Amino acid sequence: MNETVRLLQAHNSSRSYKSDALPVEVLDAIIESAHRAPTSINSQQISLVVVRDAASRARIAEIAGGQPWIAQAPVFIAVIADLYKTGLGVEKAGAEQVMQRSLEAILSAVSDAGIAMATLMTAARAFGLGIVPIGGIRRDPQGMIDLLGLPPNTFPVAGVVLGYVTEEAPQKPRMPIENFRHEEKYHSEVVMPAIDAYDLTLHEYWLKIGRTDGLTWSANMAQHYSTFSRRIKSVAQKQGFTIEV
Amino acid sequence: MNETVRLLQAHNSSRSYKSDALPVEVLDAIIESAHRAPTSINSQQISLVVVRDAASRARIAEIAGGQPWIAQAPVFIAVIADLYKTGLGVEKAGAEQVMQRSLEAILSAVSDAGIAMATLMTAARAFGLGIVPIGGIRRDPQGMIDLLGLPPNTFPVAGVVLGYVTEEAPQKPRMPIENFRHEEKYHSEVVMPAIDAYDLTLHEYWLKIGRTDGLTWSANMAQHYSTFSRRIKSVAQKQGFTIEV
Repeated sequence: MNETVRLLQAHNSSRSYKSDALPVEVLDAIIESAHRAPTSINSQQISLVVVRDAASRARIAEIAGGQPWIAQAPVFIAVIADLYKTGLGVEKAGAEQVMQRSLEAILSAVSDAGIAMATLMTAARAFGLGIVPIGGIRRDPQGMIDLLGLPPNTFPVAGVVLGYVTEEAPQKPRMPIENFRHEEKYHSEVVMPAIDAYDLTLHEYWLKIGRTDGLTWSANMAQHYSTFSRRIKSVAQKQGFTIEV
Repeated sequence: MNETVRLLQAHNSSRSYKSDALPVEVLDAIIESAHRAPTSINSQQISLVVVRDAASRARIAEIAGGQPWIAQAPVFIAVIADLYKTGLGVEKAGAEQVMQRSLEAILSAVSDAGIAMATLMTAARAFGLGIVPIGGIRRDPQGMIDLLGLPPNTFPVAGVVLGYVTEEAPQKPRMPIENFRHEEKYHSEVVMPAIDAYDLTLHEYWLKIGRTDGLTWSANMAQHYSTFSRRIKSVAQKQGFTIEV
């Protein structure tokens, strides 16, 4: 198997970093990689904000619900859905942008944001860095908008922490693959048995790494998905993403 | 620079494929890579449907607005936002899932879908395959739901075409990087000059590859983003994604 595929299959999030800065050329190459990633209809509707300032990182750690690794690692890259840029292009061509008012805008820009995130993470790991993706900035999107000075028609989707890791974390087991990979059609009948198997697997994993507070996957999902933990609609609407159609 | 970063920076979409099937172990390794990609709070709220059936691929080519490469290449992988799976987990733990009713569910699952897409694309390209991401399935999400038999609380976000390429396409230039990479804060003042420069760059690129119908970026954006080309809200709501908060 080749090096890139090995790297992807060894994916791991790290939550313990040295404060050492990244070499400029490493950070440049990581960001150039994301710059080359594809976007819907070549819209290039993604922007990055590279945050190295310690006070800003401390603030982001707080916005994300107390995630100390954001303050600890030297670089946080915010990934922004950016229809401000596209809107200026549309105006230049003599028309008016309405795209941001559709749910399609959100799916299109947020999937592009995910592509950019994965590209940043893969490139960083190829340089031997640790990473952790941060969706927690959506706990307070207005806080991120204020901190980064984001214009209308933009939204802070997520971010990535980059840095040198103090110790490698173990790789957490995944669901049985039949609950991820379906052939030709979605096979609903495989889902529940796979969940049952995975709940056991994850329980064993927590014991193996000495964590007695580890939840099964089902219990974890119940904790997070039985409430509206993040209420982002009003901020999205205020930014221009009004979800009319 | 290392091999993985070189591969990422050489990213290219291909639209001309041989019909040759992929070796089973290559497809397996590509999908295993995406299976290892991170998801929000380990929700694993992504599922793939691997479509090899020729009639299904022809139907998807049609749904996507007439994209013949979907029918031509041997494999299409649909990337599904899957809160059906998580809902069964929540229920198993004795609670009720409400997450799918929030905009947060969409941002969380769709960014995870983007991460899965990028991982599929990078792994495939590491094996020497060509790829093209397909957002066009959102022209008719209900058509995809019917074709793939998708359950409630799922949504077909996008897909990836995989196959052996007949000829390498040239790499399209990107926006000046200052319109992608911001330092510490978003710098609105860089956007318009970068767009003006890019419109010229893209015009020259079209001429260089002999395309006389190529639009500037601004004109392309005006064509796509000044109308509601895809109206997906009602299908999303029907699936359970009601965007209440």
